[in-house]
Amino acid sequence: MPGNTFGEAFRVTTFGESHGPAVGCVIDGCPPGFALDLAAVQAQLARRRPGQSKLVTPRDEEDRIEALSGLDRESGRTLGTPIALLVRNSDQRSSSYAEWKHIYRPSHADFGYDAKYGLRAWEGGGRSSARETVGRVAAGAVAEQLLAARFPGFAITAWVERVHTTDARMLIDHLAVTRAQVDASPTRCPHPASAAAIETAILAAKAQGDSLGGNVRLVIHGVPPGLGEPVFDKLDALLAQAMLSLPACKGVEFGSGFAAADSTGLQHNDQYVWIDGRMTTASNRSGGIQGGISNGMAVDLRLVFKPTATVLKPQPSADDQGNNVTLQAKGRHDPCVLPRAVPIVEAMAALVIMDSWLRQRGQVGDPWPGIQPR
Amino acid sequence: MPGNTFGEAFRVTTFGESHGPAVGCVIDGCPPGFALDLAAVQAQLARRRPGQSKLVTPRDEEDRIEALSGLDRESGRTLGTPIALLVRNSDQRSSSYAEWKHIYRPSHADFGYDAKYGLRAWEGGGRSSARETVGRVAAGAVAEQLLAARFPGFAITAWVERVHTTDARMLIDHLAVTRAQVDASPTRCPHPASAAAIETAILAAKAQGDSLGGNVRLVIHGVPPGLGEPVFDKLDALLAQAMLSLPACKGVEFGSGFAAADSTGLQHNDQYVWIDGRMTTASNRSGGIQGGISNGMAVDLRLVFKPTATVLKPQPSADDQGNNVTLQAKGRHDPCVLPRAVPIVEAMAALVIMDSWLRQRGQVGDPWPGIQPR
Amino acid sequence: MPGNTFGEAFRVTTFGESHGPAVGCVIDGCPPGFALDLAAVQAQLARRRPGQSKLVTPRDEEDRIEALSGLDRESGRTLGTPIALLVRNSDQRSSSYAEWKHIYRPSHADFGYDAKYGLRAWEGGGRSSARETVGRVAAGAVAEQLLAARFPGFAITAWVERVHTTDARMLIDHLAVTRAQVDASPTRCPHPASAAAIETAILAAKAQGDSLGGNVRLVIHGVPPGLGEPVFDKLDALLAQAMLSLPACKGVEFGSGFAAADSTGLQHNDQYVWIDGRMTTASNRSGGIQGGISNGMAVDLRLVFKPTATVLKPQPSADDQGNNVTLQAKGRHDPCVLPRAVPIVEAMAALVIMDSWLRQRGQVGDPWPGIQPR
Amino acid sequence: MPGNTFGEAFRVTTFGESHGPAVGCVIDGCPPGFALDLAAVQAQLARRRPGQSKLVTPRDEEDRIEALSGLDRESGRTLGTPIALLVRNSDQRSSSYAEWKHIYRPSHADFGYDAKYGLRAWEGGGRSSARETVGRVAAGAVAEQLLAARFPGFAITAWVERVHTTDARMLIDHLAVTRAQVDASPTRCPHPASAAAIETAILAAKAQGDSLGGNVRLVIHGVPPGLGEPVFDKLDALLAQAMLSLPACKGVEFGSGFAAADSTGLQHNDQYVWIDGRMTTASNRSGGIQGGISNGMAVDLRLVFKPTATVLKPQPSADDQGNNVTLQAKGRHDPCVLPRAVPIVEAMAALVIMDSWLRQRGQVGDPWPGIQPR
Repeated sequence: MPGNTFGEAFRVTTFGESHGPAVGCVIDGCPPGFALDLAAVQAQLARRRPGQSKLVTPRDEEDRIEALSGLDRESGRTLGTPIALLVRNSDQRSSSYAEWKHIYRPSHADFGYDAKYGLRAWEGGGRSSARETVGRVAAGAVAEQLLAARFPGFAITAWVERVHTTDARMLIDHLAVTRAQVDASPTRCPHPASAAAIETAILAAKAQGDSLGGNVRLVIHGVPPGLGEPVFDKLDALLAQAMLSLPACKGVEFGSGFAAADSTGLQHNDQYVWIDGRMTTASNRSGGIQGGISNGMAVDLRLVFKPTATVLKPQPSADDQGNNVTLQAKGRHDPCVLPRAVPIVEAMAALVIMDSWLRQRGQVGDPWPGIQPR
Repeated sequence: MPGNTFGEAFRVTTFGESHGPAVGCVIDGCPPGFALDLAAVQAQLARRRPGQSKLVTPRDEEDRIEALSGLDRESGRTLGTPIALLVRNSDQRSSSYAEWKHIYRPSHADFGYDAKYGLRAWEGGGRSSARETVGRVAAGAVAEQLLAARFPGFAITAWVERVHTTDARMLIDHLAVTRAQVDASPTRCPHPASAAAIETAILAAKAQGDSLGGNVRLVIHGVPPGLGEPVFDKLDALLAQAMLSLPACKGVEFGSGFAAADSTGLQHNDQYVWIDGRMTTASNRSGGIQGGISNGMAVDLRLVFKPTATVLKPQPSADDQGNNVTLQAKGRHDPCVLPRAVPIVEAMAALVIMDSWLRQRGQVGDPWPGIQPR
Repeated sequence: MPGNTFGEAFRVTTFGESHGPAVGCVIDGCPPGFALDLAAVQAQLARRRPGQSKLVTPRDEEDRIEALSGLDRESGRTLGTPIALLVRNSDQRSSSYAEWKHIYRPSHADFGYDAKYGLRAWEGGGRSSARETVGRVAAGAVAEQLLAARFPGFAITAWVERVHTTDARMLIDHLAVTRAQVDASPTRCPHPASAAAIETAILAAKAQGDSLGGNVRLVIHGVPPGLGEPVFDKLDALLAQAMLSLPACKGVEFGSGFAAADSTGLQHNDQYVWIDGRMTTASNRSGGIQGGISNGMAVDLRLVFKPTATVLKPQPSADDQGNNVTLQAKGRHDPCVLPRAVPIVEAMAALVIMDSWLRQRGQVGDPWPGIQPR
Repeated sequence: MPGNTFGEAFRVTTFGESHGPAVGCVIDGCPPGFALDLAAVQAQLARRRPGQSKLVTPRDEEDRIEALSGLDRESGRTLGTPIALLVRNSDQRSSSYAEWKHIYRPSHADFGYDAKYGLRAWEGGGRSSARETVGRVAAGAVAEQLLAARFPGFAITAWVERVHTTDARMLIDHLAVTRAQVDASPTRCPHPASAAAIETAILAAKAQGDSLGGNVRLVIHGVPPGLGEPVFDKLDALLAQAMLSLPACKGVEFGSGFAAADSTGLQHNDQYVWIDGRMTTASNRSGGIQGGISNGMAVDLRLVFKPTATVLKPQPSADDQGNNVTLQAKGRHDPCVLPRAVPIVEAMAALVIMDSWLRQRGQVGDPWPGIQPR
């Protein structure tokens, strides 16, 4: 009933407030006997870490992960038991946030938490802070390793496609992007000219105490046909939940998405074609998912993140005593969340695919009809 | 683990294939002692029913609902026990579908079901048919009554905002639309001139064996502050799951949605204002949800539905034997799913809000901090 | 959150009140492609049916099952989608129960339902009636078929071991009992002399308007090693929940059970022995489960059912208005629930093993380490 | 699907192996704003701690708890967010266990874990060690505080009723036992003479390298009427699951339990009586639960724990290579688990009642019909 667990078969529970002692996660249901590469988990956390560049918050966190359980002492292999992963919060300065204690920051979760629970950890957003996503990224990195070991060609790649007025959508071959290309720029936009424009825009907004939003594109290669659980836990439904559960995400679209309405059915349909004994579609407007079930084509989606709600200009606001006031925010923040959102989006994608795989294996077995000779 | 149940506290399980004996649902967790109006449930089913107008499929189904359990025999009040609701499939002609038995219809779930399960109920889409949503609409109508009885001003209204090139977005005052306005046209677009254009477009597409898609807008009034469960079951995350679980839905956006990226943070933020002791925001770009928790403003979202995948022209396709073939679809279908999607969208919204309410009540009690004097 | 669903991977939701229109269940998560034998399901329902002998309630119900969904129309194979099974209540006479409307029957659930929900279906016990177990038996019969097809030697056998003072525990070879032996007597005690004594005792109690309780023994053969989920969903923990969820069950013990305290550790331990490459234990005081995980030996448990709470003598009781009154029960009832409890116990056992299997397959795969060459 | 979480509304996930870095739990769904007494949590852990007396294992663990999240930094009040509680394993000597690496200890979980997962943390039992219950006790202590604050007269008391041949059942007034009486003896038997006999017996068994089992009695006072979820999550069903999930527990009985079969229905029924406007029963053979729902009387159950499987004599056993061998166990262990089981049993009871309360509040509200004037 509470909402801090994601997944049914590969279950991840995250915990932690931004300025409490620690953040982390417990992964339950991990397949046993897997030689987990903890360094790769750490590397993915490094991609999410604050302080990577001048584009992101200067909060200084090493984000060193500690595995508390679930791994064999000698071999490091997964035991099949819960894997608890812990990251200490080292930079807990909270003096910058004193003004937030009684004032609700515009477009933040402060008022919601007070309305819901009657109190909140007000320093730095507490539980609603993006710092909570440390646990997601760690768990997602575990899932990603398992998936890559099971499914040939499995790869998750997210990138910044647009920031404010710079939209690289038409300039990027979405099926060819690699993580190396994405990480080549601190913007995480793999199109160099667009990346340069985005960097300039973010720095300009930062200088003005303002912030920017944009789109993240996500492509998952190597998803086998047959994943996704009709009728409520369809693959796209779970991916939509996963993405909208991220701070600042305001929308998601699959394949043709909102542009689907521009076409007629005859124009929009993806025609099936057998090629070399493998089912494919001549186009992929469905984004790799039809009827909620993967069809073997690339899973393709786009998310929008609003501009960071924290801005460093005075804003009209309200406090928790019924007064209308003016808020002058201070403190560290990202002038644009998108560069750091990239590994978080990848993590959520990994969690959804991982969970769908284990659910499919439970009900149908592995291999299942769509991935074996019939 | 399987995916046919929605909700944690107000749990709805649907069952049934389009050409099997029946469709329906079991609602578990319904609050007891509520004087359920079954006629109102039936009325909402009538809004979803095929054969309502020439814009929709001519399949003739009375969709008469039968309550099998969970209601007091004398008073009709809910017992707190599972409410099973049944609708028989009366029109089970399947001869039209013979060609579908071995051919995968483009952009349909046929291949996915075969890939997943190794077999499928091929007549009329089986489980993947929109006929499954009968159970959703029935359950949603139950939830809606309970919510209206609990929360003053509670109202869910969805409508067709756009079909193909006719977009009424700017022509409709989204906070003022009523169901009566929506139902005034068989298109379910509450703007008369747009409705006329949409009707013409759908009939033209139908005449050509083609189909159209478009956008549905959904506004929920009267949602109290404090609903939604951080961090994975945020109100927007669950609404996104709910909507993407609908057949043909390809995207969802909340408040400013994908347009959020057009603004900077200073432009986009919703400023808090106390008005007469009630917290409000000066704008509602957040769509009534901040940090995943309702803030008391109208919940506002937009969905896109692709053009109906069934079109009555020959299309290249593939069969389940490895052959590339040509499919000439026959049978009854909606040339545009949007008019009938409206009550289904409303139902899913009701299920999400209902579930979030009971979850909130379980953890925090009722009233909770945000809806009582502090 | 509500409690009408059992299982995580093989999920069974039951619905229905004893004197409502129908009882039944929805099975979600059934493996696809299985040639379900509905006649065998019906046969197991016949073993639970009232009116089988003079030892049980004369309520006349044919208990004819109808499959509403989830089965392929042509082949009868499971589709992997929800299987809804329905049994109409044909004998809904409720006049006998008029006195129950305001009086709480001793040791029944009447008061509890009123305390919990504020109302109840008072005729015949409503939801708390053992009639609810129709759905369990139907679902259990489905599970049993699937298990028998997967695991060599799989067999579930329950029987009446004791009624009141007649205890056949020491007279029965618990590893050799068959269903045919169990069904040879309407008492469902496979030891003929004990069965005769039990029959006499039940009829004598019935003649006096009294009732009897006793023990049911359950042995499950062919459970492979490795089932059961540490640490809360251990195989014995789930079996205990399953059994205590049955009406009138007051206790459960595994293997040596309460007699375990009579031994010391040296006496009690089950020593491991490899025999022909198969791990066995020299004794089975653990009842086939160690540390919550099956070890490949017979799963062995014992349940106690209290004497039927309905007795046909005047009893002091209380009504729902605060008055202490005298109740003279009328109506049909079982003077001893044990004979009809046997198939219900078997059904719950099947549901637990089935669910544990699919959960194991999801996390670890199938075959798993304990059932394949290493 | 995995099994390391208990509860639906008050969800507790435990993690940790006996000789890994740490054990602990995450509590999700805790009501917000509660002034948690962490010292009281620590105190309950101290009652579970090894090394308390010569009757228990000498393993030396301080079991100092650290709260990682979910508590307000200033007030210590619960935030409504996940509460992560951590206990480091300080005494991780594992040399004593080298022999266990390949040999399956009789009546332990070693073989089961290998059969299930293909590997295990063999030092000290790993995940199957009773050390896992640290997380349970911590979470249960949180729940207990919340329950005591909500329900007048709420109290959970467990004690050692029997060890081997010393049975104090008839010598103890089960409704009057206090924790102080229980803790007066290291045996946790509140009857002094029996406690002395039990102490002698345990020390004698220890001296012989043997071990003893026995019964724990549990009484919960102040449970309001109406808790427990029909039909699968009945209060007794969940308590049964909770108790059988404990290491070494082999059975549970409620109220009259297995002795219920000794009576007839007329003898066994608990007659309802209104006393001063409060519903009571003249007897409590039901153990405070009827039809799976609490009736306001004391909840009363009895558990049996088998003799500790670890004994310090040579025993025939088998290894993981197919060989039959002799095992000479070494290392620290409890010659009788019952004294330390007492706080663990109390913790599980608290978790069940807490979860049932929040589930009831979610569906029906609080107060509900059975605990308010009607």
